[in-house]
Amino acid sequence: MKTVLIKEDILSRNNERAKEVRALTREKNVYYINVMSSPGAGKTTLLTKLIPALSKEFRIGVIEADIDSDKDALTVERETGVRTIQMHTGGACHITCQMSLEALEALGVDGLDVIFLENIGNLVCPAEFDTGSDMNLVLLSVPEGDDKPLKYPLMFEVASAVAVTKLDVAPIFDFDRERAVKNIRKRNSCADVFFTCAKSGDGVAELAEYLREKIKNK
Amino acid sequence: MKTVLIKEDILSRNNERAKEVRALTREKNVYYINVMSSPGAGKTTLLTKLIPALSKEFRIGVIEADIDSDKDALTVERETGVRTIQMHTGGACHITCQMSLEALEALGVDGLDVIFLENIGNLVCPAEFDTGSDMNLVLLSVPEGDDKPLKYPLMFEVASAVAVTKLDVAPIFDFDRERAVKNIRKRNSCADVFFTCAKSGDGVAELAEYLREKIKNK
Repeated sequence: MKTVLIKEDILSRNNERAKEVRALTREKNVYYINVMSSPGAGKTTLLTKLIPALSKEFRIGVIEADIDSDKDALTVERETGVRTIQMHTGGACHITCQMSLEALEALGVDGLDVIFLENIGNLVCPAEFDTGSDMNLVLLSVPEGDDKPLKYPLMFEVASAVAVTKLDVAPIFDFDRERAVKNIRKRNSCADVFFTCAKSGDGVAELAEYLREKIKNK
Repeated sequence: MKTVLIKEDILSRNNERAKEVRALTREKNVYYINVMSSPGAGKTTLLTKLIPALSKEFRIGVIEADIDSDKDALTVERETGVRTIQMHTGGACHITCQMSLEALEALGVDGLDVIFLENIGNLVCPAEFDTGSDMNLVLLSVPEGDDKPLKYPLMFEVASAVAVTKLDVAPIFDFDRERAVKNIRKRNSCADVFFTCAKSGDGVAELAEYLREKIKNK
């Protein structure tokens, strides 16, 4: 019982900080996208394809969060050339609003139209912590299986949009698109669903167009 | 700072409970294996292949932990016929020793030689919580990438053995076995590493043989 109360307290303090993050991004007129998924679902790779599709129109920044290693920030910087920072969480399994705020300050919000936050690869805890973002983009990787929305309910409940990734291997993994949508719908009646393959580029333009509309109407 | 102290307190209480779990499994002469990985790395599928390879010699029980859904317990029961229970964590991202103890009691330890606990699919939090098991078997799925030990250090530090899964798709995902071992070795100098494909059965006999030795020498 005690643990639950502590958690509620942590979450309510986090929600308070979320207001500060939103005040900052609104003041600076920047759209803030929180990208979440399991480990290795393809967040970084998808970003390296989405960013070139958006960077002619918008000034983009990226925050890469990891428990350890600088690999993802180096990849994004090398592949896209946009302003990128690596945040280390010191073992933490999610990004709190305090971390989110500090990362935005470290990146520098001025002069940017959109910022992507690549959250810790974890289909559980990051969903509990509002990062102050304008959108939660949740990735569901084909090799994980189309049943994941059943097992990780909150992540799919908080999703603004779901991008299925690695679609090219769907036949190998017996991944059924209709079953995936049906399972997502059990958790979320309105999230937009996209089917993508960063390798072939399939579906990336549609997702980029969706984000473009969101960013323009911010 | 406060949060860290709370966490330390939770972990130290958990470690105390771990002694109770180990006292129980020792008294009943049962070997307890904690299986951990990312979501969809193939824990259930690997178990459905390992169990038939061990069930002639040993009496086996399985605890399936999930935030929601009974899918995995039904699969294991249907495929292997061994005693299986489904545990729901009510949103929790890991298994504490208290949960572990309650699940062992619900399953019934009497008359079993080995119990597999399939932990929540999460490469972060379950590594922090000792379940009272005799062994941590960590799965690394090929589609996740061979860099995961760099990003999720603690999980690979606490591993007694690492089973790489879905080896059949290694060429599609540019997964390098040597690089994987090198990355595992950065976190763990002695964990045994196995390369498996549950679909083709490759490597399953070697892993089963390794477990057989551990169970026999318990």
